[in-house]
Amino acid sequence: MIDPIDTASNSLLTDFYQLTMAYGFWKSGMADKESVFHLFFRRAPFNGNHTISCGLENVMHYINGLQFKPEDLEYLESVKGNDGNPIFEKGFLTYLDKLEFRCSMDAVPEGTIVFPLEPMIRIQGPIGQCQLLETPLLNLMNFPSLIATKAARICRAAQGGPVLEFGLRRAQGVDGAMTASRSAYIGGCDATSNVLAGRRFGIPVRGTIAHSWVMAFADETEAFRTYSEVMPNNSVLLVDTYSTIDGVKKAIQVGKELKEKGYKLSGIRLDSGDLADLSIKARELLDKNGFPDARIVASNDLDETTIQDLKARHARIDTWGVGTKLITAFDQPALDGVYKLSAIRTPGKDWEYKIKISDQSAKVTTPGIQQVRRYYRDNRYDGDVIYDLKTDMSKGCTLIDPFDTSRQKKIGPGARYKDLLVPIYRQGKLVYELPTLEAIKRKVQEEIGSFQPSVMCLTNPHAYPVGNERSLHELKTKLILKGNCSAPPRHSGRDCRNPDARDGETVRGLNNYLKTQEKQ
Amino acid sequence: MIDPIDTASNSLLTDFYQLTMAYGFWKSGMADKESVFHLFFRRAPFNGNHTISCGLENVMHYINGLQFKPEDLEYLESVKGNDGNPIFEKGFLTYLDKLEFRCSMDAVPEGTIVFPLEPMIRIQGPIGQCQLLETPLLNLMNFPSLIATKAARICRAAQGGPVLEFGLRRAQGVDGAMTASRSAYIGGCDATSNVLAGRRFGIPVRGTIAHSWVMAFADETEAFRTYSEVMPNNSVLLVDTYSTIDGVKKAIQVGKELKEKGYKLSGIRLDSGDLADLSIKARELLDKNGFPDARIVASNDLDETTIQDLKARHARIDTWGVGTKLITAFDQPALDGVYKLSAIRTPGKDWEYKIKISDQSAKVTTPGIQQVRRYYRDNRYDGDVIYDLKTDMSKGCTLIDPFDTSRQKKIGPGARYKDLLVPIYRQGKLVYELPTLEAIKRKVQEEIGSFQPSVMCLTNPHAYPVGNERSLHELKTKLILKGNCSAPPRHSGRDCRNPDARDGETVRGLNNYLKTQEKQ
Repeated sequence: MIDPIDTASNSLLTDFYQLTMAYGFWKSGMADKESVFHLFFRRAPFNGNHTISCGLENVMHYINGLQFKPEDLEYLESVKGNDGNPIFEKGFLTYLDKLEFRCSMDAVPEGTIVFPLEPMIRIQGPIGQCQLLETPLLNLMNFPSLIATKAARICRAAQGGPVLEFGLRRAQGVDGAMTASRSAYIGGCDATSNVLAGRRFGIPVRGTIAHSWVMAFADETEAFRTYSEVMPNNSVLLVDTYSTIDGVKKAIQVGKELKEKGYKLSGIRLDSGDLADLSIKARELLDKNGFPDARIVASNDLDETTIQDLKARHARIDTWGVGTKLITAFDQPALDGVYKLSAIRTPGKDWEYKIKISDQSAKVTTPGIQQVRRYYRDNRYDGDVIYDLKTDMSKGCTLIDPFDTSRQKKIGPGARYKDLLVPIYRQGKLVYELPTLEAIKRKVQEEIGSFQPSVMCLTNPHAYPVGNERSLHELKTKLILKGNCSAPPRHSGRDCRNPDARDGETVRGLNNYLKTQEKQ
Repeated sequence: MIDPIDTASNSLLTDFYQLTMAYGFWKSGMADKESVFHLFFRRAPFNGNHTISCGLENVMHYINGLQFKPEDLEYLESVKGNDGNPIFEKGFLTYLDKLEFRCSMDAVPEGTIVFPLEPMIRIQGPIGQCQLLETPLLNLMNFPSLIATKAARICRAAQGGPVLEFGLRRAQGVDGAMTASRSAYIGGCDATSNVLAGRRFGIPVRGTIAHSWVMAFADETEAFRTYSEVMPNNSVLLVDTYSTIDGVKKAIQVGKELKEKGYKLSGIRLDSGDLADLSIKARELLDKNGFPDARIVASNDLDETTIQDLKARHARIDTWGVGTKLITAFDQPALDGVYKLSAIRTPGKDWEYKIKISDQSAKVTTPGIQQVRRYYRDNRYDGDVIYDLKTDMSKGCTLIDPFDTSRQKKIGPGARYKDLLVPIYRQGKLVYELPTLEAIKRKVQEEIGSFQPSVMCLTNPHAYPVGNERSLHELKTKLILKGNCSAPPRHSGRDCRNPDARDGETVRGLNNYLKTQEKQ
């Protein structure tokens, strides 16, 4: 249980319906139809506007190790349906046994800032294979991206003060902690308390002492003194076991003893009470007694909001220990990433572009084989356009916000740009060289610095222009209309509407489309 | 990364400060002092009153595999402090290398319902060892208990309708999913979509189809027909890819074709829109067309609240597919379990009972070597008392609510009871036989049925009597006073107060104590 994922069974880390659908594709002779899926999220977390892409390295490890082992196949053989018969035919198990990853995959590098509906991964290959990958890819991208985004928010609130990730004890499972420690470091944290994450990923490890250390001694001073003797240059003393200000005074007393021996009190930690008030009082006491360099570390259910509040109240906190609220992304513990089919063809034939309709406009998918082009102006990012690979982009483009089609932006042909999705696999062959963890961490900071500061605000961030390229927008609208009209239209073709539309979103989409057509 | 926890490095799955404190205890000759720690939580999650204990099996796997491997020690040797010197002496690494688990541990069996401040685990042994276990034990208990509790709430809302756990794609890491799938099954879920959890734990696996299946075909009817041919007795058709009611009609058409061939449409799945309204309409259509047995499965961000709402609106939903909100415990994604020292002694000498003071009464710990006695009346649970093992309980007891000392309950000497904590290890030796997953799952239902139904309400549950046994309460109060008075009191001993108390809790605790004394 501690080791839930051994290499023997990664292939079963998927939803059961992926296997029944793969079986269905195989059984109906469709498994080798070529398909295109995109992984993207619909809403930015934490009332923000963006997400930091994270998790690609895990995805690659997963795919590289993908293989159905005999024990996996044996298990699948044993799964029975409602009628008591095995669900899967032997022939399908042989197909799984011989499965070799043959897809091409493009993805945005880890640490890239992405916006709702922008593909983070595009995968193209046999539909049987692409389908199986849906669940693991979502699991391996959603959570890391969520935590990297949360960590970056917390670090922005801390305004450069070191942020230590202390979340292991409250994480969602062992790997919830490991994944979060890596993602939090990428997002901007300076260190972790998780020693295993330290060893695995090379993240610096930090820690102070717990209340139990203090309680294990007859009095607080003796506890501080003993620890300082053991760690003469690395003592951050926890001062709130009994009474915080008394604790600060005792830490100062021990600090003086250390100084006499030629050592240095590293700092103190506050873990309860009014952290603004206590840190100001503690700073005064430390300064007055000759410890201007002793750092004040604070912890106790911190996140970006409490840190901003404490900063506003002039708290004298140097280092922030952040646990539960970061490691679980407490205020929004899941990213709503999805993985959607957008094109299909019989190999060698023409693509058929696909769309899913929904009453909620955010749930309508985008068709095609997509790329995201990010344009620059004056060395800052100026706008993103999602476009179909078949589109000629050499003459510039117009991007149309999918959530509000009246928001449009023209970009001229000479504008500098980069395409966000880069090749990772080509027909199953790995073609991407992984950056180091430190390089990914640096990339996040470069990304944040490349947007207008107003776009990266923690509260009410300014909207950054993101939209579909005009012809993709038009294709999407056409397919929405066609989809809605697959039953005979009630009135004329122009007035066709979805009889089940509840919130009018689809109809608004249609009206916007018609308006757009009229403008041309 | 997919396999973050190999057996070579479980020992580093801890906070760095546990290692520095263990080093401190070793270096100052205290590592073999005998200590007692309790693991408990302070507040019940989800505005409820209890938590379902879960995770003990993982704890046992962890402890059984606990060993510092050469690569762990090599890593620890490389960790440097502020002064650039290694943090740990070689002698300490040798101590870790030779570490053998020698603690005794008692715990409540998995599936037991527990209340705030009741110990779920008590561990007694060398303080160096107990300290190292703090973080892994919290990680391995907090999250499973949270999810088992959440799942039980969702299943109570579903009133016996099957609940399927569909959360893998939104889980917090791979192990976040594996741990949650097991815990959700214990809490009452009937199946999981996670195939790996199915193989590992023997949990039934279930699934339907995704929108991508429908989109892969030229039209919806063809998609339904093809799937039904592949799975003639196991087809639950997803009907909302384009227009839900149209989708239901097409499913019915394919159901009729199935019937002609002697098969049976299993059901349909609704995944968007007004699930109450759509399920009522779908039920009518299915019944009218001769499919009264076809089940209606619903999904789309469900939890106990939305299920209760849908039930109140007479939704005709048979089976509930629950994902994100369950797998992450979305509305409260962390349990606040803690692990606190409560007694210490030099081996062979008398115990010294310990307490941590705090301005917040919930953060004050309870001293002693604790057990929880759960009393019965008329075959229902009647009240829990936390007592010190040294206390003579043969003459009955009085329990005093630690959050409101005016709430007291007397229990006579003849009352039937059980003690919740049972022996798991004795001096490092495993003495507990693990129950099966099915037995743990049954236990949860027995537990829920053993409380007054009002205590298990989802909203505003009735308070269940839980308190400290009178002499433990008095000892705790005495230690609070002693702790507060470790600086000279301002006035008389009776009026002594913590100068840093902010919200008056500690002072109220004192007043309650004095009132209690006067009553005697």
